Amino acid sequence: MRKKTKSVFIGPVEVGGLKPIVVQSMTTTDTRDVRKTVLQIKRLERAGCEIVRVAVRDVEAAASIAAIRKKIRIPLIADIHFDDRLAVSAMLAGADGIRINPGNMDPEGIRAIVKVAKERGTAIRIGINAGSLEKDLLREYGHPCADALVASAIRHVGRLEEMGFDRMKISVKSSHVPTMIHAYRALSSKVDYPLHLGVTEAGSLLNAAVKSAIGMGTLLFEGIGDTLRVSVTGDPVQELPIAYGILRTLDIRRVGVEIVSCPTCGRCEIDLAGLVRQTERRLAGIKPYLKVALMGCVVNGPGEAAEADIGIAGGRGFGMLFKKGKIVRKLHESEFIDTLMAEVSAMVQNQEEN
Amino acid sequence: MRKKTKSVFIGPVEVGGLKPIVVQSMTTTDTRDVRKTVLQIKRLERAGCEIVRVAVRDVEAAASIAAIRKKIRIPLIADIHFDDRLAVSAMLAGADGIRINPGNMDPEGIRAIVKVAKERGTAIRIGINAGSLEKDLLREYGHPCADALVASAIRHVGRLEEMGFDRMKISVKSSHVPTMIHAYRALSSKVDYPLHLGVTEAGSLLNAAVKSAIGMGTLLFEGIGDTLRVSVTGDPVQELPIAYGILRTLDIRRVGVEIVSCPTCGRCEIDLAGLVRQTERRLAGIKPYLKVALMGCVVNGPGEAAEADIGIAGGRGFGMLFKKGKIVRKLHESEFIDTLMAEVSAMVQNQEEN
Repeated sequence: MRKKTKSVFIGPVEVGGLKPIVVQSMTTTDTRDVRKTVLQIKRLERAGCEIVRVAVRDVEAAASIAAIRKKIRIPLIADIHFDDRLAVSAMLAGADGIRINPGNMDPEGIRAIVKVAKERGTAIRIGINAGSLEKDLLREYGHPCADALVASAIRHVGRLEEMGFDRMKISVKSSHVPTMIHAYRALSSKVDYPLHLGVTEAGSLLNAAVKSAIGMGTLLFEGIGDTLRVSVTGDPVQELPIAYGILRTLDIRRVGVEIVSCPTCGRCEIDLAGLVRQTERRLAGIKPYLKVALMGCVVNGPGEAAEADIGIAGGRGFGMLFKKGKIVRKLHESEFIDTLMAEVSAMVQNQEEN
Repeated sequence: MRKKTKSVFIGPVEVGGLKPIVVQSMTTTDTRDVRKTVLQIKRLERAGCEIVRVAVRDVEAAASIAAIRKKIRIPLIADIHFDDRLAVSAMLAGADGIRINPGNMDPEGIRAIVKVAKERGTAIRIGINAGSLEKDLLREYGHPCADALVASAIRHVGRLEEMGFDRMKISVKSSHVPTMIHAYRALSSKVDYPLHLGVTEAGSLLNAAVKSAIGMGTLLFEGIGDTLRVSVTGDPVQELPIAYGILRTLDIRRVGVEIVSCPTCGRCEIDLAGLVRQTERRLAGIKPYLKVALMGCVVNGPGEAAEADIGIAGGRGFGMLFKKGKIVRKLHESEFIDTLMAEVSAMVQNQEEN
């Protein structure tokens, strides 16, 4: 069961409570380049990104937040390391939230940040990261283990609470998935602030998918986590299908088309891989949830296809079209893709009208 | 902690007990085509497949097992539905194991199979699948839920035990990941036979990675599972990096090169995605475990790179080379890939000599 956390607003987007898990991403552009950054954020928006984060490493980047925000629809979070003045500038420029790792800022700087955040109602993520843990905790724990990450988070949560601040989210990321799982579990048992899940430095597409799915999937299945970001080296637009894939797999958020298709074996007598590729490509933009089953043979095909909204179970050059468990008609292999697209379009239109 | 199960031999490969989790795959060729099937198995072997399964749908396919087995190094499992005589033929042709779903065979047929399996010491996987559950259980449970899958498995385990047979592995697969997780958990609490993990009909590469990683990862992290197969629609060779990625992520089996790389952000000043792609491609074949960190900037870079066997943390057109936490030297960006390859080669050679 989902753990009920406090809820925090990032602009108009509510994170925590029992609100839907919010999907975030982060730009890879130079934030000072407003045009390029806005273009990338638009692409992320279209792919389903609900909150976007940008790196702020100098005053020019902080200042460009004002211009960027005017041109995008989703809330913006400024990511700042070391320099508290950049965090203040980013908030004054209109950032809906900031992410800091308080361990690399001095206490006076944090006080200045919190003062402005309180005045403006800006949310702060305390972003603890195994790669940048405080030296005293590294000495105490020996290495950036789960307990050290949690100790760092709890320390900074306490300091912000002492300043009367509670508009917080917390993350305790690591590139080592078991560490990250243990850290979030421990943190979730100690605090009620919304948790931002992530596996850092997860690598390129496939590795990032595997690591993120295990790390975040395990936690989400236990009810832990209120927002998440999948990290992929490369185009950040690639992160969104993984994020939504994780949420869809666990029935947490059902967005987009889920294609169920068998691995094919010696029994398969249709070009299933080709059919799956075409179907994926042609249904990529669809927002409503639909389960489409594409099965290579009659052994498991009809059983699985019966669970799907629509499906095809292939035979020798032909296939049976199913809708909601009922056989609609027999199709020649050449009709598969066009028939499927027509049926899906009708179903999507029907869903959107209701 | 890993659950200790009974151990079962598939040819020379021991599955269960506390032996390393065994990685399986399945051919997509027509098993009657010995040449094509052997070629695909050779590719699977090279990618790390440790037991291979082939579909047997007629007597010709069963007979070709004899020829296939002579040409491959890993044990072979014959996958049979409906027809018990094919299972017997496959065993007589030398299959090291068979996989059946006893729900679609008659009791007399199963008796005949078990008789031959006992005589020859062949292992049997009871492969329950949500898509092909017995009608009486579907009626009783209403739909193929976790309890129904487990009831089917327990029923057939009991029948084989009554015949004095215990050389069994069991799977309870579903394309619905929460169902699969609940089913394996329940099954693991009820039986001590080794469990074969899988998410069926997982779709194409990225979806299969996400679903398999959540389903199998969650279970493996709890100590459940003795062997696994990732299902991907398309070339089965794609399954192996996902399987080993899951095992490596959870520190269960450390095989191959793990590349830790940051998602890059506005702070990154080197072409990290390009470096990761090149590194992945050039290190793809390596078997010993190595952790390589490729980091775009100095914020998290050095911290993470210090945990890796070798790493580069990039700056503006240059980078710092780390080995086992110690800075080796400063590199120009143009030297990154060649230096890394030379260092990794030396480390791999060193590992292999020890």
